[in-house]
Amino acid sequence: MLRVGIIGASGYTGAELTRILSAHPEVELTVATSRQNAGLPLSEVYPSLKDRINIIFEDVVMEDLVERADLFFTAVPHQTAMSIVPQLLLAGKKVVDLSADFRISDAKVYEKWYQTHTAPEYLNEAVYGLPEIYREKIVRARLTANPGCYPTSIILGTAPLLKAGIIDPDTLIADSKSGATGAGRSASVATLFCEVSEGFKAYKIGEHRHTPEIEQEISLLSGRQVVISFTPHLVPMSRGILSTIYSKMVKQLSQAEIYEIYHNFYKEEPFVRICDIGTYPATQFVKGSNFCDIGFKLDKRTGRVIIISAIDNLVKGAAGQAVQNMNLMYGFKETLGLLSLPLFP
Amino acid sequence: MLRVGIIGASGYTGAELTRILSAHPEVELTVATSRQNAGLPLSEVYPSLKDRINIIFEDVVMEDLVERADLFFTAVPHQTAMSIVPQLLLAGKKVVDLSADFRISDAKVYEKWYQTHTAPEYLNEAVYGLPEIYREKIVRARLTANPGCYPTSIILGTAPLLKAGIIDPDTLIADSKSGATGAGRSASVATLFCEVSEGFKAYKIGEHRHTPEIEQEISLLSGRQVVISFTPHLVPMSRGILSTIYSKMVKQLSQAEIYEIYHNFYKEEPFVRICDIGTYPATQFVKGSNFCDIGFKLDKRTGRVIIISAIDNLVKGAAGQAVQNMNLMYGFKETLGLLSLPLFP
Amino acid sequence: MLRVGIIGASGYTGAELTRILSAHPEVELTVATSRQNAGLPLSEVYPSLKDRINIIFEDVVMEDLVERADLFFTAVPHQTAMSIVPQLLLAGKKVVDLSADFRISDAKVYEKWYQTHTAPEYLNEAVYGLPEIYREKIVRARLTANPGCYPTSIILGTAPLLKAGIIDPDTLIADSKSGATGAGRSASVATLFCEVSEGFKAYKIGEHRHTPEIEQEISLLSGRQVVISFTPHLVPMSRGILSTIYSKMVKQLSQAEIYEIYHNFYKEEPFVRICDIGTYPATQFVKGSNFCDIGFKLDKRTGRVIIISAIDNLVKGAAGQAVQNMNLMYGFKETLGLLSLPLFP
Amino acid sequence: MLRVGIIGASGYTGAELTRILSAHPEVELTVATSRQNAGLPLSEVYPSLKDRINIIFEDVVMEDLVERADLFFTAVPHQTAMSIVPQLLLAGKKVVDLSADFRISDAKVYEKWYQTHTAPEYLNEAVYGLPEIYREKIVRARLTANPGCYPTSIILGTAPLLKAGIIDPDTLIADSKSGATGAGRSASVATLFCEVSEGFKAYKIGEHRHTPEIEQEISLLSGRQVVISFTPHLVPMSRGILSTIYSKMVKQLSQAEIYEIYHNFYKEEPFVRICDIGTYPATQFVKGSNFCDIGFKLDKRTGRVIIISAIDNLVKGAAGQAVQNMNLMYGFKETLGLLSLPLFP
Repeated sequence: MLRVGIIGASGYTGAELTRILSAHPEVELTVATSRQNAGLPLSEVYPSLKDRINIIFEDVVMEDLVERADLFFTAVPHQTAMSIVPQLLLAGKKVVDLSADFRISDAKVYEKWYQTHTAPEYLNEAVYGLPEIYREKIVRARLTANPGCYPTSIILGTAPLLKAGIIDPDTLIADSKSGATGAGRSASVATLFCEVSEGFKAYKIGEHRHTPEIEQEISLLSGRQVVISFTPHLVPMSRGILSTIYSKMVKQLSQAEIYEIYHNFYKEEPFVRICDIGTYPATQFVKGSNFCDIGFKLDKRTGRVIIISAIDNLVKGAAGQAVQNMNLMYGFKETLGLLSLPLFP
Repeated sequence: MLRVGIIGASGYTGAELTRILSAHPEVELTVATSRQNAGLPLSEVYPSLKDRINIIFEDVVMEDLVERADLFFTAVPHQTAMSIVPQLLLAGKKVVDLSADFRISDAKVYEKWYQTHTAPEYLNEAVYGLPEIYREKIVRARLTANPGCYPTSIILGTAPLLKAGIIDPDTLIADSKSGATGAGRSASVATLFCEVSEGFKAYKIGEHRHTPEIEQEISLLSGRQVVISFTPHLVPMSRGILSTIYSKMVKQLSQAEIYEIYHNFYKEEPFVRICDIGTYPATQFVKGSNFCDIGFKLDKRTGRVIIISAIDNLVKGAAGQAVQNMNLMYGFKETLGLLSLPLFP
Repeated sequence: MLRVGIIGASGYTGAELTRILSAHPEVELTVATSRQNAGLPLSEVYPSLKDRINIIFEDVVMEDLVERADLFFTAVPHQTAMSIVPQLLLAGKKVVDLSADFRISDAKVYEKWYQTHTAPEYLNEAVYGLPEIYREKIVRARLTANPGCYPTSIILGTAPLLKAGIIDPDTLIADSKSGATGAGRSASVATLFCEVSEGFKAYKIGEHRHTPEIEQEISLLSGRQVVISFTPHLVPMSRGILSTIYSKMVKQLSQAEIYEIYHNFYKEEPFVRICDIGTYPATQFVKGSNFCDIGFKLDKRTGRVIIISAIDNLVKGAAGQAVQNMNLMYGFKETLGLLSLPLFP
Repeated sequence: MLRVGIIGASGYTGAELTRILSAHPEVELTVATSRQNAGLPLSEVYPSLKDRINIIFEDVVMEDLVERADLFFTAVPHQTAMSIVPQLLLAGKKVVDLSADFRISDAKVYEKWYQTHTAPEYLNEAVYGLPEIYREKIVRARLTANPGCYPTSIILGTAPLLKAGIIDPDTLIADSKSGATGAGRSASVATLFCEVSEGFKAYKIGEHRHTPEIEQEISLLSGRQVVISFTPHLVPMSRGILSTIYSKMVKQLSQAEIYEIYHNFYKEEPFVRICDIGTYPATQFVKGSNFCDIGFKLDKRTGRVIIISAIDNLVKGAAGQAVQNMNLMYGFKETLGLLSLPLFP
């Protein structure tokens, strides 16, 4: 049994990691930290875990905890991660970091959107943990930077067409919509039930911190530097991200040909489902699962292709993808612990 | 007192008209039809109206009802409207038609997106009922074609910038999101609570019937023929439309200059609110009101402006705008009966 | 114009008061306080109010504000109210207090459920502001204690049957369900969207502070001291309270006879609607209105009557009832500003 | 591998059975019927199942399907079940029937609440499939009548106290609240998103068909004939039932003693969790799982105990319990396929 720890286990992502790992046959959860809830059983903070998860939140005392696990998931805020991750690596541990700190390979870009990077020497080594693109590197990684939720939906949605060179990356617009778990479990007025319910809004227009991460990967796929318009929105639901992505076609293909490109790109992928022509993804059909569903529409009137991709932001957009990365890093079957079907309705 | 009738009063739009008209001091509701509910009191079908609205649904028997009102709101499906509206006009009545049948001035365009038009002789006379653009014409109209909900949000959001010639209409993309009242009150699996709740999806991508209506008005504002990408989505909420609209800038203006354009365009308008720079609309802040809230972000990185507009689809997107048009057609104060504040939360 | 002030205007109740008063023809809102938001326009904290409400939150500086209004609504937490209300009264103002501080006439009972009462000398004078029961007293009051939301629904639901002596008050059980606005607008994890949505729970079972208030009024109606079981629950919606109330019948009446009792008791009441036999209230049909809808079922199998009452907790359960009380205290028509129909859907 | 079939697989319960069985290591789903969707892949009707479930809905042709499975789940409406189940039994199959047709052992009682029973000869043999009460009988059953959702929550909530004789069954009141999946997947206006959202209501007060089923089991546990008040309500959520149950105490016990009774009664049960004193269940903490969470409050003021029980109506209230019964009937570990943790948030 692989011993795993979660640093920062009291947020929604930490709880989701706990839920998924509880069904993983090769893994034992041995450490779960939470500064705020240190000393409390996980099941007191998340009653859903009662009688099944018997671990107690502990404070982050590195010398104490580092020996009690082989792999660590770091689910702490950016800036905190960059101080913890190096300690874990130096202690010989493997790490799947769910923060943004090791996703952007260029420290200058990182610092433009976030703040000073205090561990830039690990940026080169960190592997961007999107298995559908970087599987081989993840297999050999000791530090995997788990992608952001929005980037996962946008990169998986566009990669086949960018690679095939049939869309113009300069015309890319990603209009994304997320459930409220994306905002985390901190007390705040803006995410109260009565503020979110029966409402819909955009936020951080043109300035969301996932932008440079998306642009880095889109640029690599396009073979040249690209900037995109990315607009996140808040949907009155708990889980799910749906991205509607617009791009001008540069080659005139039929819908069937585009379908073929998607199909071929993802045909071996266990977690990407391509919708039949004329049908589109919906977040309720991936809820609780590690799927990314992708559909598209070729709009000949405007010369654009409109791509729709849907994920559960806490699973394929965070904890599920992290476990998928762990499976790769340890040679487990990639789908282990991740095959439960979406919970619909 | 003006006597008004509602043809097709049992849907959500009809109920909303009833609600709004009940607070209008110059109007008496004398006729409400519903084929399906003929003989039932409105308050049995909508218990919210109990003890205040004492009308009974009647079947549509034109010769019976036509004399009992001066103005009719026709809230019936397209194709039905084109058979009813001419009868009302011939009987000397004024009409605010909430269907699509008289919105598109070119019968050929209408027939491409809908079906054969059997009353094209009225297309020329019908006035597109968007007061912020066509107020003078509405004042003199006897047939007002009340705009669609999505078009209202998109046209009001873009008109100032299109008129000012500072955005490129060929790059226009409207990504719109609507609450479930937009789907009406018919029994269907797709709009059951359990199918819509905790879910988000796009539908009718690139083929929604509001597209030609939007393009007609955008083209008029641009001074040339324009096609746009329009993608509607379903949000798990009852009321509200938020449109996120993307366009390339053709002139380099500052945010303050763009704000000024919006402010000047709408400064006399009682129902359009321009958000301060850095703040954006949200549907929950217009719910139940006739407001259209508009905000924008100039994204210099991409050379695009992103416009956000929000309305209550049943009010400014349907019944409220219809009453606003009625007010204009009868010389009432334009805001009469429409000043109640949004119901938040 | 009556000048009114709201002390504690930044919570949901304060915002609802603002919304309702904005449509009241005899009133001008001149003061709105908020310690936390002092200096900010109301419309920045509640964008729904933009362009219509131009007041700025001010801090609570009594000597400053007391002269600028004739009547004050105090929408502050209990314990705070008891320090503010006497100052207002001493300055010659009338007060509608929305806290619990003056609802319970027996200071000992109050202190058992709350804390020490520092202004018990006003308890005798304060009138319990339920117009359907205490209209005559409210007309002459200078201090009206606006009832709690749960008590309003339970007292109105049971008063006719208790008065008629046909149910056994010792068997009374009130199982109440409330939307999340009842928890207020403070940042807290328990009322985040993701904690409330897709969930249902009971809380403060047998120990909610509305219990003594309910028992005081139920006892007065019954003519003897009564204790009841009261269980509040949290519903994943914003507005609305529905109480399901159980009691053993002590006289064997028919449904028609019970209906008659309700009808006669409330036949002059503008805000109480009695549902036809076989139909029951639902919160969505009173949303945004000052109605209390009441229905009942006589269950001969068990010898119980089951009463259902529904209100909007922010309107008839708080701000609407407060305005109704104000209307009575100033001789305005009781329904002034309160006649807008429920917003459904 | 056990071959199982689902008769009536296109409703929410059928889909949930499919989801749960897909993770069951000893079972292969070989038959799924749907009159309405015959010929369509399950994954077209439930896109959540895409790429994992490759079965096609077939019409109900008994002679065709009966040989292709060993055990059948019948998830058809009552009255339909009583015609299908006997055919399956006569063909030597085992059956878990999810309808009401075989739950009530007295045909006269059944016929009073439902309609004529055409297969009363099987009532004696059928075992009421509540494993916590009837485990030994289920192990030997060939026809298990899977309990209703409401009855599951109410019987599990009260059984320990009834058995212990410490509450008065004549004072039992069950106030239950259910998510909208309980209404099924049929098109209807009453369960549209816009009718259910932001609303709460009671329905079928004192006349819901689960009443005789609850009374049968409560009476058996009490040792005498009991009638209860049972009021179902509709909550604006998809999944979950929470029952608030009231009863007078007949013995004066402490909270600790009551806790001990619950603890001892359920201590070996894998799917019943007893909440610590002072904490209560919530539906969001059992969602998607086979748990029944139970909490209680002893209210000395009123001499009543208030019991709260929560289940996922589609899992412990239907499909999960059905699989639990199947596990017992075939000697599988009772928890097989049922251990996934609740999906919160």
